[in-house]
This record gives sequence, structure tokens and C-alpha cells, in this order.
Amino acid sequence: MQMQKGRFTLPAEKGMGKGLIELAERWGADAVRDSDGTALPEEVFDLGLTVYSTLCLIREDNEWAKAHRDCLQQAYLMSERITAFGHELEIPLMQGYFADQFSPDERHDPKLYWEVIDRTDSRILHPEEWRYEASRKSIVLQDAREGHIYTAGFLADQIWEPVSMYNHLTNSWNTEHRLPVDPRHPEARAHLLEVLEHWLSGHPRTDVVRFTTFFYNFDLLYCPGGKERRVDWFGYLFCVSAFALDEFASIYGYRLRPEDFIDQGYYNTPFRRPSERFRDWMEYNQRFVANFASDCVRLVHQAGKKAIMFLGDHWAGTEPYGPCFASIGLDGVVGAAGDGVTTRMITDIPVQETEVRFYPYFFPDIFKPGGDPVGESKKVWARSRRALLRRPAGRMGYGGYPSLALQFPDFVSHVETLAAQFRQIAEMARSRPAASLTVGVLTEWGSLRSWMTHQVAHSLWNERCYSYLGAMEALSGMDVETRFLSFDDICSRGVPKDVAVLINAGDAGTAWSGGNRWADPIIQERIRSWVARGGGFIGIGEPTAFEHEGAFFQLSDVLGVQKENGFTLNNTREIPEPASGHFVAVDMKEDIDLGLPQYSVFLCGLEARALLIRNRSVSVAVNSFGRGRAVYLSGLPYGPSQARLLRRALFWCSGKEKDFLPWTAEDPRVECHYYPSAGHLAVTNNADENVETTVFFSDGRVQQFSLSPLALVWMEV
Amino acid sequence: MQMQKGRFTLPAEKGMGKGLIELAERWGADAVRDSDGTALPEEVFDLGLTVYSTLCLIREDNEWAKAHRDCLQQAYLMSERITAFGHELEIPLMQGYFADQFSPDERHDPKLYWEVIDRTDSRILHPEEWRYEASRKSIVLQDAREGHIYTAGFLADQIWEPVSMYNHLTNSWNTEHRLPVDPRHPEARAHLLEVLEHWLSGHPRTDVVRFTTFFYNFDLLYCPGGKERRVDWFGYLFCVSAFALDEFASIYGYRLRPEDFIDQGYYNTPFRRPSERFRDWMEYNQRFVANFASDCVRLVHQAGKKAIMFLGDHWAGTEPYGPCFASIGLDGVVGAAGDGVTTRMITDIPVQETEVRFYPYFFPDIFKPGGDPVGESKKVWARSRRALLRRPAGRMGYGGYPSLALQFPDFVSHVETLAAQFRQIAEMARSRPAASLTVGVLTEWGSLRSWMTHQVAHSLWNERCYSYLGAMEALSGMDVETRFLSFDDICSRGVPKDVAVLINAGDAGTAWSGGNRWADPIIQERIRSWVARGGGFIGIGEPTAFEHEGAFFQLSDVLGVQKENGFTLNNTREIPEPASGHFVAVDMKEDIDLGLPQYSVFLCGLEARALLIRNRSVSVAVNSFGRGRAVYLSGLPYGPSQARLLRRALFWCSGKEKDFLPWTAEDPRVECHYYPSAGHLAVTNNADENVETTVFFSDGRVQQFSLSPLALVWMEV
Repeated sequence: MQMQKGRFTLPAEKGMGKGLIELAERWGADAVRDSDGTALPEEVFDLGLTVYSTLCLIREDNEWAKAHRDCLQQAYLMSERITAFGHELEIPLMQGYFADQFSPDERHDPKLYWEVIDRTDSRILHPEEWRYEASRKSIVLQDAREGHIYTAGFLADQIWEPVSMYNHLTNSWNTEHRLPVDPRHPEARAHLLEVLEHWLSGHPRTDVVRFTTFFYNFDLLYCPGGKERRVDWFGYLFCVSAFALDEFASIYGYRLRPEDFIDQGYYNTPFRRPSERFRDWMEYNQRFVANFASDCVRLVHQAGKKAIMFLGDHWAGTEPYGPCFASIGLDGVVGAAGDGVTTRMITDIPVQETEVRFYPYFFPDIFKPGGDPVGESKKVWARSRRALLRRPAGRMGYGGYPSLALQFPDFVSHVETLAAQFRQIAEMARSRPAASLTVGVLTEWGSLRSWMTHQVAHSLWNERCYSYLGAMEALSGMDVETRFLSFDDICSRGVPKDVAVLINAGDAGTAWSGGNRWADPIIQERIRSWVARGGGFIGIGEPTAFEHEGAFFQLSDVLGVQKENGFTLNNTREIPEPASGHFVAVDMKEDIDLGLPQYSVFLCGLEARALLIRNRSVSVAVNSFGRGRAVYLSGLPYGPSQARLLRRALFWCSGKEKDFLPWTAEDPRVECHYYPSAGHLAVTNNADENVETTVFFSDGRVQQFSLSPLALVWMEV
Repeated sequence: MQMQKGRFTLPAEKGMGKGLIELAERWGADAVRDSDGTALPEEVFDLGLTVYSTLCLIREDNEWAKAHRDCLQQAYLMSERITAFGHELEIPLMQGYFADQFSPDERHDPKLYWEVIDRTDSRILHPEEWRYEASRKSIVLQDAREGHIYTAGFLADQIWEPVSMYNHLTNSWNTEHRLPVDPRHPEARAHLLEVLEHWLSGHPRTDVVRFTTFFYNFDLLYCPGGKERRVDWFGYLFCVSAFALDEFASIYGYRLRPEDFIDQGYYNTPFRRPSERFRDWMEYNQRFVANFASDCVRLVHQAGKKAIMFLGDHWAGTEPYGPCFASIGLDGVVGAAGDGVTTRMITDIPVQETEVRFYPYFFPDIFKPGGDPVGESKKVWARSRRALLRRPAGRMGYGGYPSLALQFPDFVSHVETLAAQFRQIAEMARSRPAASLTVGVLTEWGSLRSWMTHQVAHSLWNERCYSYLGAMEALSGMDVETRFLSFDDICSRGVPKDVAVLINAGDAGTAWSGGNRWADPIIQERIRSWVARGGGFIGIGEPTAFEHEGAFFQLSDVLGVQKENGFTLNNTREIPEPASGHFVAVDMKEDIDLGLPQYSVFLCGLEARALLIRNRSVSVAVNSFGRGRAVYLSGLPYGPSQARLLRRALFWCSGKEKDFLPWTAEDPRVECHYYPSAGHLAVTNNADENVETTVFFSDGRVQQFSLSPLALVWMEV
């Protein structure tokens, strides 16, 4: 039953000789790939492996780019917020930006393409009120209002392709800065196709072309000194150009303003509810990217090769969950996976084959004396495996320098085990696993951002996102179907019939929680009525939160809790005694980590019961609402106990308490996945230690399991 | 120099005989008073003491009230928020209210005076869409929208005078419920004046009439079962009546709606920024209360007695810091004091004499075996004394049963000491104490709510208000002048010339912090320019907070900090190293209690420096802004170290670091007050333990002090 070989892509490295062959054999690799800037060593071509080659078209021909500076990619940038201390004011455009990355576009008339805003007055200045001083790259005002804040939005050329810049700075390269070409310009588009054709004919031994990705990078902005300033993996900022702005206007019948991109300095991150204009902009780009990417894919196919894309780098506009993706015609998608949500983000993509590249990369930050690559890998595998058991990937792989991995024999043998488990899952989980119920995750983005929650926050602040992230991570490997729904979906079609429980989570005002969408009567009446008729609703963090008509949590009647907004501190409030023995809280320990605390959440409604109190605030609560039910959780970082709490909440909310036990282990660290059509069961120990536990079967039987660390046991049932 | 007698009002109790005389002598009482419902014992009249008698006119003649139910006081109440589960909907008006306190007013046409609102649609229902079912005291809708939330605002009679109700329920009285008469009705007004005249002629031995207070109680609403539901010491809800609504319309030219009082269920608490309409309502009531109260005071004066009022109970509309107060013509104000802000709230009132009644009351909750009345009193005295040293009261007193106090000999002798200190302060502090600088406290309310911050929050949530309360408490006894400024003051006159530092504090969106007033360009430009020219600005909690034009703290450029709003989590942020040795933080310990934590506050601007980091968030920061300076504090509960931190912040912000040492003790628990015209210095030990410390004099001398617990030392300097 065990597959000893295949489904494994090995990164190659020159000069490894026998080592590479050893790794390929021990790990059962059936494919080998190069990386950015490295060529494949000759010896691998003799191994009979499939050859993957990476290609990033827009930085491929630097000489052409240097000769066609009007075809460079651009971006809209907002200056710092500058305070006027008198009537004269200078706004130094590049303050806070990296002069090696951007340069103000002086080819297109600033008076037409730029915008200076008095943020204190919310007023766009008339172009006559300011001038551009090219010598200092500054906007100058002669008649500013003292005590007001000004910003300038300006078009800038990208003078260093950002991924190349990142690699360059990270690895201290000395090579020439590569320039990003914008294929929107017809001459650039034509040239890039020529580059591709030339490349294809120059790579006869390549079986699979791996685009990384296509044309426009996610937003990656650096500070002076070459340090990261902000990153938005889902941004469309780098698709901007004067050319695109003009073309957009001719297609959509209106011009986008700098502010449409700058968005007060928030740059339309996924935290922001997108404006209609920004949605148009996304659509416009998706259409172009899909159109030109499909031209590229067609050439690859004509050359007898397969075309896949790496989900990352220049993937802006490809949107694998968007309406244009299918038309690109890709044979597969590869993506890096560090946990369950990133794994599902890749494996749920509607494409023929998916490949997950596991962390850690074979880089010296971890593969060094005293480093613990096995420990790192186990953490990733424990999370990613849960997701694969729900939706397997066809292939796996790694990145980095295999020579480094070879220096850690325990890692090499750990990957042997991991790869064996991976292949098992890929085979066994192709038969659809049983789902206890369907969960609808309600956000402003809906299905477009399916599972795309992992990298929205900078790592420093990740804890702020616990309320959203932990729940998604738990769902990624839970025995449920997950559907991502938008508020527009609810408005136009109501809650889908198959959905048993809706989840709304995140910080107040964000696109995740929904902000003022909750003031929309249609949303309120649809969801209330649906819950009242037997639906389930789980709110995490600041769900349904928008201060409006006397309520902060708009669905406080559904949730049974309300959060203090600073206006009702004079109301008498008892701190309730937590109810004991409730189904939802059976496995919950007093000290469970629920992430960043919420304060001043209190019960409302006669049916509501608190299950956990933290800082005098209700942290977990349950409520009945008509024939439906609701659960409130103040936050939910991922962990086995938290996933169990969420699973119990889901079953309780949907009135399925009686169905809870089958295929459940007593110990929350152990999870079961049942594949009814194949008649087999996977039992996983997600902990890196031995666990003894009882598993409840669907026919009432129980069975004891004694599981080794991270064990995966398959059995016929 | 010590005054052995006087300035002391003793509560009397029947049947104490010699005990009362002993207390009067040991405490040096020169006045005696009765309490609600108790008459003075005969023997006190032989002691030669001034006699204070309490009088609450509106509940004095219950027979008349019962015979004139159309003259009862009323209120607007909002029903619970009721969810429509179908088309038929019943809103039970009294749900959540105490049927012994309120009854819906069925005399005035509900269709004219009531309002039913669809809170989901923000729509006032047409009166034809609902009917009132008197038998069930319910509003009934036949055509509700499923999934919408409805509320009804209705006029209710007050059928139990709230203070009497409180005493009744607290002390398990069995007496008849007293009804509150509304003097706005001409016949009620005439009758109350008759009652007063009759009362005056029946109390020939009374020297001082103590009104408790005048006509309308603060908002005190009870739940079914007779438990407190909400309390607003500054409310105007109980001034409402159909009569007043009609009269208001005729004077102001527009009708107030139920919603003007109900305010989405927030009832215009001091946390809410008041609407223009609500400000009109306050003015209308202040005029009436002052007008009729002055009639009462005139009668008292004609009877040869003095008239004072108790700041509490029915004080709505008297507004001692409002424009009409002086016209009442009172001889004095009494109020209960539990700390510095309540003390200053009384002693700063522009009236001839003020009296503070100290906690604890002589009640069995504290005066019981195992109780610690001395400990309770010391806590109050340590805080109140600081305030008195800045602005002394003329008199002090206590409440409750003196027979209980007599059972605690250590308390009796403790009060001897306390009273002696009180008398010293009353004499010595009449000469104005030196102030190092003037602080402007900027809120929506300004001077109208001078020091009135103490009881805005229910005790359960007081910690939420630390950000505001602690700073006010610290200021109440600090060697600074405090001016309360409103945003309107800044708009119309700018920052007053004498103000060196502005403080803005509180939760985002509240009247304390200012909410959307910070989006007003006039406010922004005035305050920025003022700081830039050398002013100081201290922000505490969520200062200047209003999400607008890309900023949450609107004056982040002044403060040097910004707070994450959930939109910029993808920005790179370093957690700064706290700067060491800064003037502001010299006395600050790492573990200083700064109240409820703020999360995700980060530095912005190149000049900003963090002085304390908590939970990866900037908790204390300093910034330079033009020629001015700013300090941010995440919160500030009151304590000696916190008061010291604030004092240092004030001196630093105003550029007066060099003036800091004179009249400062090294140990923050010891404070100095210097009275330049009298040439004396008070040194207080605010701690209940011995403290040895050095005091810095203005001529450069230093002196060692060895201070006993709570010592107050006077010296000529």
C-alpha cells in the first residue's frame, strides 16, 4: 500500500554529485527543480526525473527594460503625513521610501496624475496650490494652513523588481538591479512573448515551466536603508501605471484617482472593506493578467511542456479563486505551506494538480549547528497534515540548498517518514472524507479570499488576528466543509441551503468582521431569520461589530453578548457565574489560551449563558435564538484544545450534539478522518509525544489507541 | 493656632443622650443636623449648636401627590430591543423595568408622545403601524419585518420617588411609597411653596434649611425585583413630562422627540457627546430649576434662616458650574466626598460656603464587629486632604448613626485628629496656594462638568475609566491650577493664554476623549498650532481618537504615537527600546500600574521616544512637536507614583523641568503645598506608614522630614 516513490519535487544544487542522488532516492523524488538564479546541475538530467524550471518573465531581459524605461512597472505612493507649521510647506515625497526601489514618475504630468490632500479639511488641493520641485523630489505649498496635515499621492516608477530586491538584500548579492517590465504596454507584451519563446527553445530538457508567478508582485514596500516597510500579499498596488489608468478610464468610463489606491494611506489591504472602484480595479487587472498569462501558457503547451504557477511573488491578479483563473489554462499550482490554512489555500484551488512546498527551507537560518530543522518541520507537518487529510495535494516539495539538509541525517530520515505519510494521504484521501456539517465563513471578501488569511498581518502583530486566524486554522483540518461567503452573497442569495453554521470573526471595522455591512437591514434580517429558523452562528473577537442604533455587536440578540462601547458604563452589570457542564465547554480547561483579551463583554438576553469569564469579561458564551443557537468566543488562536472548542461549538450550534462522538477521540490532540466510500479511517496524533486515547466509532464501538508522536494510523472500518 | 471647635456638622440620633454630647465635644461640632425621616432629639437644642434641617419638597406632601396624579414627575423610557421573529410583534414596555417605580403614562396620547423605531432600518414607524395594548402594557405590531429589531420610547409616570425608593428598599422600610410631584405644573408649584411656608413656620429652631436637593432626581432606574439597572448622576431624564415637552416646544420653537432623550438607549449619559437639542433641554431645565429654587430660597431667607443644598439626590438642573446657579441665591453647598475629585467638585463651586461630608457613613456595613472604619476613613482622608489643601472647604461633617461611631473609640479619636487637621487646612489654605502651572482639561463638557468624573461609571467598570479618572484625581491635589475646557471653548476662543498644558483623556468616541470633534479642522489647527508654538499636550488612554482620513489618534503627529485600528497590521513595526533616564520617567518603576492595557500603540514621528513598553505596545511616550512637547500615557489610575508621573509629564511638557524640584519631596508619597502670601508650607505624608524623605525648597535648601502615617506638617518658610 505504501508508495515509495513519486509526488516529490527536489530542489537541485550544483556540485552535490552523489548527495543529490542519495536524497532523491531516499525521499523518492520524481522531479527536480531549479531556483531563482540557479541552473540545474548536469548530473540530474541522468536520473530520469521530471525537470521543473522556474521563469519570471518581467525581469528576464534587463537590457530591454533599461532601454524602455517608459515600460517600467509603477505604483501609487502616499507621502508621509506632513504637518504645516506655517504657510510654507514641503512634502518630501521619498521620505520613508527606499530610493533604490522607487522614483517619482516625472514623465507624466504630476498635475494630472498626482493629488495633494489636506487631510485635516478632507480637501483635494487645486493643482495650482502646489508645485513639484524635481530637484528635491518634493511638493511645495506656499499657502498651507498652519496646523493642517497634508499628504501627496504620486505615481512612482519601480526601479528595482521587488522579489529580486528582496533576494539581493537578503543574500547580499552584488548583481545588477533588475527592472520590472509592465506587459500592459503593447511593445512590452510583444517582447515578453518573444522572451518566452526564446526561453522555451533554450530549455529543451525542461518538462514543466514554473512561472513565479506572472507579472505583478504583491505589495512589498521598503524603507530607506532597504528594510521592509509594509507587505500586502493580496495587494494590487504594483499593477498601477499611467498606461493602465488611462486604459481603465476608457473601459470603465471613469478615471481612478490616486486616492482610490492610496485609500488614506491604508492602500486597500485585505483588512479594508474594498470600495466599488477598487473592485473594478481588481477586475480590470484580473482580466488582463488572465488574458496575457493564457497567451504564455499556450506557448508553453505548444512547446510540449506543462505550465504551472507558484502562488506568491508576482501573483497579483491571478486570483486562483477569482472568475478569470480557469481561463489561464494552468496545469497546476505550487505554493509554500507553513500550516493548515496555507495548505488549504493551495489544495482547494480548482486546478488539475497542486503541490505544497513545505517549510522549513534548507537555509542556514535553521540548518545550522544547534538548529532544529526536524522540530520546525514537525510543527509544520502537524498542521499541514490535518489540511491534507481533508483535501490532499498531488505533490510535495522543498526549497533551498539540499546540501544543507544532507548535513542533518535525522532530518533526512524524518523527511522519509513525512514523504511516506504524504503519499499515503495523497492516495487514501482522494476518496472524499466525511464532513459532519458545512460551515460558512462570512467576510466582506467571501470566496475570493478562501483560506487567504495567513499572511495578512505582519508577524509582529499576528496575535491581533487570532480571533480570525486560529478559527481558520482549526477549520482547515476539521471534519467539516468550509464555504467562504461574502456579504454580497448573503444579500443576493441568502445563506446557502447546505450551510449549518455561519462564522463571523475579526476586529471591528475590518473586512473580516464586516464593519458597516452589519448596518445593512438586508444582512441583519437575512441572518437573524436564518438563525431563528434553526441556523447556527459563531462570533469570534468582535463579530457583527459596528456602532449603530444603540448597539455595537449588531447581532447581540443572536450572540447573547454585547461589548461595552464606552457609553453604557453606568449600567449595572453582574459578572455572571460561568455555567458548568455545557456541551460546548466539556473539554475546555479554565486556562485555555484565547488570544488577545477582549474587555467588557457582557451577557444580554435571558437565554445567554457564560461559559468562561476572563478579566471580568465574558470570554465564551452560548445563546439560543428562536430555533437556532449561537456561540461567542473572545478569540481563538489555534491549538488542539481550541480546535476542539470550535468543533464542539459547531456541533452544538447546529443541534448535532448527538452526532459528535462518532470518529472523535477523547483526547483533543488526536483527530479522526473517515472516508466513507473507501471505508477507511485515519487517526492522527497531532502531538509530538505518545498519546493514549479512546476513539468513538459510528457504530457505538470504542477503541483504544496508543499513538507514537505524530503518528498517522490507517484502518479499514 | 489649632482650632479646637467649629466647622463640624454632627448628624443627630434620637435616644443617644450623653453620647451625642460627648461626640459633639470631642469632635468640636458647632452644628447638628437631622437626616431623611429622622427628627432631632430634644437634648441637642440645649447644646447651643446651629441646627440644620433637611427638606425635600417634592415628596413632602404625599396626600396632595396622590390626589394630583397628573402632576407626577415622569420620564421617557426605552423598551428592550425586541427582535421580530415573524410579522406579529409585541413590545412589553415594562420588561426590564420596576413596576413599582414606573407606569406607562396613559393620560397623554401615545400616538403623539411615544415613538416606535425599527432599529434595523433606522425608521420611525408611522403611528398607524402600531397600537398600545393597555391591558398588557405592550405595543403591538401586526406588520413587523422578520429579523428586524424594534424599540418603543414611551412616557412613564414616576410612581415612586427614587431616593425614597432607594432608602425604602435598602433599609426594608414598610412605609407608604412617596410620589414625586413635578413643580412645573403651576398648581404643584403653588402648593410646594405653601408646603415650604408651612414647614418653615413649623421649624422655628432650624437655623439652616438643607434642601436635598431641589426637584428632579438624577437618573436612577431599577429592574424588576427592585434592583439597580442604571444610574446617571448627571442625567436630565427625570425632568421630562408631557407638560415640559409642550412648554419646551413653545419656547424653543421645536418639539423634542422621545429619541432626543432615549438616544438609542444611551440616554445622553455624560459619556455621550450631547446633541444641540439635548443642550437646549439642559438649558431649559436649568432655567426652570434656578427660577423656582430661588423662590424657595427667598422664602427661607424671609424666615430668617439660611438655605443650602446637598449636591446629590434631586440636584438635576441646579448645575453648580452652570450659568443659572448663582441666581438660586444659596448660602452654601454640602456634598459627600470620598476622594479628591469629589472634594474639589464641591469646594470649587462658586458659593459662599462649602461643606464636605466624609465617607464612611456611620452605617452597619462598616461599623460592625470586624469592620475597619478607621482604615476606610484614612483612605478617604488621604485623597480628600490633597484636594482641600488646594481649595479648602468651610465645613466638614458625617452621615449615619453616631451611636454606631461611639462604639469604635479608635474611630472617635481618629476623627478628633482628622477634624483638627481639617480646621487647620480651612484656616491656613485660605491663602491661595502656589500653582506651578495651569492645566487645561479638554472634554466635550468643559467647565460644566468640572471635576464631575467620579461617578460616571458603575463601580464594576470603574477600571475602564482609569484613563480619565486617575488623572483627574491626581490633579485634584496637585500644585497646579486646573481649568476645564470644552471643544466649543477652543473653537470660539482658542487655548486660553494662561494654560500651559492641555490634557485629553478617555475612551475613543466618548465625550471625554471627544469623538468626532477631533475631525473638526478648527480644533485640529488651533491645538496643533498652539502646541507647535510651545504648548504642552498630554494624551491618556485614547486621546484625540476618531478614525478619519487615515488616522485614529488624530493628533498622532503631536503625540508621537498612533494606535492600530485593524487596518495596518501588515506594516512593519519595530518594538522600540524604551529610552532610559528621561525626565518624565525618573521616578517611574517598571511595574507601575497604568490601568487597563492598551494594545498595539506604536511610535510615529522621528522625535518620539518610548519610555515604557507593555504587551509589545507603547505605554508611555514623549514627543517634541515644533517648540512644544507631548506625552502619551496608556492609562493612569490614581496613586502616588502615577501622580508623580503626571506631574513630571506636566513640567516637561511645559518646558519647566528646572522648576520641578522646589517644594517637591523625593518620595512621591509626600507632597508639599506652598502658600506664598502667608509664607507657610504644608508637607503631607499621603501614606499610612512612616516616611523619611527629603524636601527641596525654592531657595535651593533641602530638608529631611520624618513623617508619621498621614502626617500633615505646617512650617513657616
